[in-house]
Amino acid sequence: MTYCVAMRLKTGLVFLSDSRTNAGVDHVSTFRKMSVFENSGDRLLVMMTAGNLSISQSIKQIISEHVNPDGKTIWNAESMFEAAQIVGAAIRSVYERDASALQNFGIDFNVGVIFGGQIKGERCRLFQIYSAGNFIEAHDENPYFQIGESKYGKPIIDRVLAGSEITLDQAAKCALISMDSTLRSNLSVGLPLDLLVYESEQLALTRFVTIDSKNEYFKSISSGWSSRLREVFDEIEDPVWYTTATIAELALAPLKPDLRQALVSMPKAGFRDKTMAALQTLAQSEATAQK
Amino acid sequence: MTYCVAMRLKTGLVFLSDSRTNAGVDHVSTFRKMSVFENSGDRLLVMMTAGNLSISQSIKQIISEHVNPDGKTIWNAESMFEAAQIVGAAIRSVYERDASALQNFGIDFNVGVIFGGQIKGERCRLFQIYSAGNFIEAHDENPYFQIGESKYGKPIIDRVLAGSEITLDQAAKCALISMDSTLRSNLSVGLPLDLLVYESEQLALTRFVTIDSKNEYFKSISSGWSSRLREVFDEIEDPVWYTTATIAELALAPLKPDLRQALVSMPKAGFRDKTMAALQTLAQSEATAQK
Repeated sequence: MTYCVAMRLKTGLVFLSDSRTNAGVDHVSTFRKMSVFENSGDRLLVMMTAGNLSISQSIKQIISEHVNPDGKTIWNAESMFEAAQIVGAAIRSVYERDASALQNFGIDFNVGVIFGGQIKGERCRLFQIYSAGNFIEAHDENPYFQIGESKYGKPIIDRVLAGSEITLDQAAKCALISMDSTLRSNLSVGLPLDLLVYESEQLALTRFVTIDSKNEYFKSISSGWSSRLREVFDEIEDPVWYTTATIAELALAPLKPDLRQALVSMPKAGFRDKTMAALQTLAQSEATAQK
Repeated sequence: MTYCVAMRLKTGLVFLSDSRTNAGVDHVSTFRKMSVFENSGDRLLVMMTAGNLSISQSIKQIISEHVNPDGKTIWNAESMFEAAQIVGAAIRSVYERDASALQNFGIDFNVGVIFGGQIKGERCRLFQIYSAGNFIEAHDENPYFQIGESKYGKPIIDRVLAGSEITLDQAAKCALISMDSTLRSNLSVGLPLDLLVYESEQLALTRFVTIDSKNEYFKSISSGWSSRLREVFDEIEDPVWYTTATIAELALAPLKPDLRQALVSMPKAGFRDKTMAALQTLAQSEATAQK
């Protein structure tokens, strides 16, 4: 299903995508999910897609070639907002062309787009564009977007991006760790990855790399993060249980466990099995102090 | 949507559930998701549910009260497999009673069940039961199940449970960290939590606790894990970019970035905007060495 993530910092933008696509477990392939539109000195735009691959590719095609009746294209849009509208319009064109035919096969018109970058005269901007062609923009309180299999990699981003300022390189590192967690937990996301780091005001592509299984930096992040996490896990205190007359409780947990709600009582009567009758009705009263 | 996780080790079982339920953001409540069936010395069974709450509660009710025509109940089933079938049959009863009425309101019959424990004479067993009443069993190669909002908390379990043996208390710690990651990233999962640790051969409830926001142990795990993760993140080397004549590449990444595929070329002709004509067609050739 793919996983793409982008972050917007004061100093620039970070974009990271995988390249796995699948139409069922028999049909797993590699297709790039990142497209870069560069006019050095004027604009640097990045688009990443997730969802139906044919829709994603059609969107890219339309954006690359189409000229609006008013002459507007991705290359001469005057603001990122206008450029995002052009992408949205491209999605709608594909919808008009393909949606009902897909529906005949029970396939939903499903695509997710992350679109960001900088046009000369404006600051860096980052958008998430939906299947309907509408979009939202990232801001300080919500500085990142994810599309595709986003849940596995979200906790680490929430922990790192919260609060303190980080550098572009730290954000790239965070995105790579987020991607690593996702790669380990879901087969529909796979190498190679595309990583693009955009420094504000460069208006050109300066930092881009395709990361595959031989990339030493990614390998060191992946194994380093894993082993350090395991060390931290071992350093954290195990729970200590102490027993009371009624039931064992978790240390440092002064609350009495509210067992009555959790335990299902044995029924008192109405069972044909005679051995039932003698058994306790409230397990709580007979629980012996164990361990 | 809830999150429940259970793990099966050689030494016993761990069960952890949250208690948030919601029917839209205006209707968020607390309902316990864990039910414990104990007949001390004979059996200890635990059931956790996710999905449609009315279906979950009906299942619990049927299991607690219903006697099969052959006299079988959850209290006298001779094996965990038989007990799991009884749970499956309960789900099917609820389906027969409720599914089409729900459908009239566009609601799918959706429930997930984790069911495990020990009956005297057998080893510990753990099952995941589906909406159709069918189920699968956990084994050494796949020792844990999750239901509900499972993705956020999966990476840490995959990292910790892989390979080495861990103790029941370490597994409980792992489940709590997995839950903590989920709580931070998704509002449909919330405190309090129910944690049950079952030691093999006890055939009784010995370790159970309800964890709320005042539980010192959970608070220390939550903040400790977060701050240590941030330390590990800072200790990991940031990426180093080195520039070449053509484009900056990621350090230790000997592969040349395959830009040709990522970059979308400016169209050579056909645009009304005259300024287009002078612009470069392949951004690659003019990218200057930056930084």
